[in-house]
Amino acid sequence: MDYSVVKVKEDILAENNKRADELRAKLKSKHIYFLNVMASPGSGKTTLLTRVINNLKNKYRIGVLEADIDGEVDAINISKNTGVKAIQVHTSGACHLTAQMVDDALTAFGVDDLDVVILENVGNLVCPAEFDTGSNINMMLLSVPEGHDKPLKYPLMFQVSNIAVITKIDTAPIFDFDFDKCEKYIHMRNKDAKVFKVSAVKNIGVDELTYYLDQLFASR
Amino acid sequence: MDYSVVKVKEDILAENNKRADELRAKLKSKHIYFLNVMASPGSGKTTLLTRVINNLKNKYRIGVLEADIDGEVDAINISKNTGVKAIQVHTSGACHLTAQMVDDALTAFGVDDLDVVILENVGNLVCPAEFDTGSNINMMLLSVPEGHDKPLKYPLMFQVSNIAVITKIDTAPIFDFDFDKCEKYIHMRNKDAKVFKVSAVKNIGVDELTYYLDQLFASR
Repeated sequence: MDYSVVKVKEDILAENNKRADELRAKLKSKHIYFLNVMASPGSGKTTLLTRVINNLKNKYRIGVLEADIDGEVDAINISKNTGVKAIQVHTSGACHLTAQMVDDALTAFGVDDLDVVILENVGNLVCPAEFDTGSNINMMLLSVPEGHDKPLKYPLMFQVSNIAVITKIDTAPIFDFDFDKCEKYIHMRNKDAKVFKVSAVKNIGVDELTYYLDQLFASR
Repeated sequence: MDYSVVKVKEDILAENNKRADELRAKLKSKHIYFLNVMASPGSGKTTLLTRVINNLKNKYRIGVLEADIDGEVDAINISKNTGVKAIQVHTSGACHLTAQMVDDALTAFGVDDLDVVILENVGNLVCPAEFDTGSNINMMLLSVPEGHDKPLKYPLMFQVSNIAVITKIDTAPIFDFDFDKCEKYIHMRNKDAKVFKVSAVKNIGVDELTYYLDQLFASR
């Protein structure tokens, strides 16, 4: 039993990696940059993306895929608060999106009028890290209320993320969060990870992140 | 491909349910109550459990299983701050514990000198909800910083949880959290869910939860 389960998972991941490479090549040929955003539930993905998109929407044509098990709130909010095209993708209970699911969603969505695709992945620090979505870059968010020890507990998420954004930094005075330890733990998992500290609600640090993403999007 | 993946998952869940029932029967025969605690990463599971265990440790012999992908911090903290027996269970990358993994861990741990087993499951609002651990009751935590919309996005977690604890309520003044909406959404998923509101750090509401758990543990 155990062996067959492991084997099935290996097959699924290998198939997914192949599909992800194909999707990446397809988007590259269309000069579309694909940013995959991952985090725990409630870490502030939608609020931060709203800020970033409003900063960059006049420079790039941006489309947003909002992935959730259920509910429509994120797509409605992004659309209402930025004016860019957004759709909700439901995962039928699954804890992550596969490259095939992303490709199908993008086909339904239509990407030919876009420069940048942003995927807000399912709120989860485990499964989305295992499945390459076909993105050009992975950005993960860790909110101050969650605690600075998360890179110790969820190694793969921090390992596969090129950008780690510490969010809700305005709440640091009321939480026991050690920024130095957090950065040390993040770099223990990925020594090249670029770390940003933001409060999307108070608009602190968002300009630095925007500038960095702007450079990435321009390279598409 | 899709069909075989679905079939494998169905087989895994059916096998897990069977193992969970066997574990439940085994623990019942030993008069041991098994509480499974689930939540997002960083929602305050360990801090709340520390309070509850300190309130009840003189009445019941309690043992704690701390499940994580990696790291030892939770078992060390629980053990240091309560004095009860605790072990760390690593899931080899998996996003949840199966009943078999719990049974193996309990066998290694030794339960014959215990009245209550508490499992702090992997921080994740998706996968742990799918896998019956063999517990007598499921308690899930939702922290105020995560937002009141989570029952809309993670239906199964709220559906399978008999107890929903809203944590970090002392931080409500700085977050946009609507308690009435949250309770409404929780009861939309499970109309019988018992809802508690606590701040483990400030020791608010913990006595009510302790009293409720005490009654459950006494029924073992």
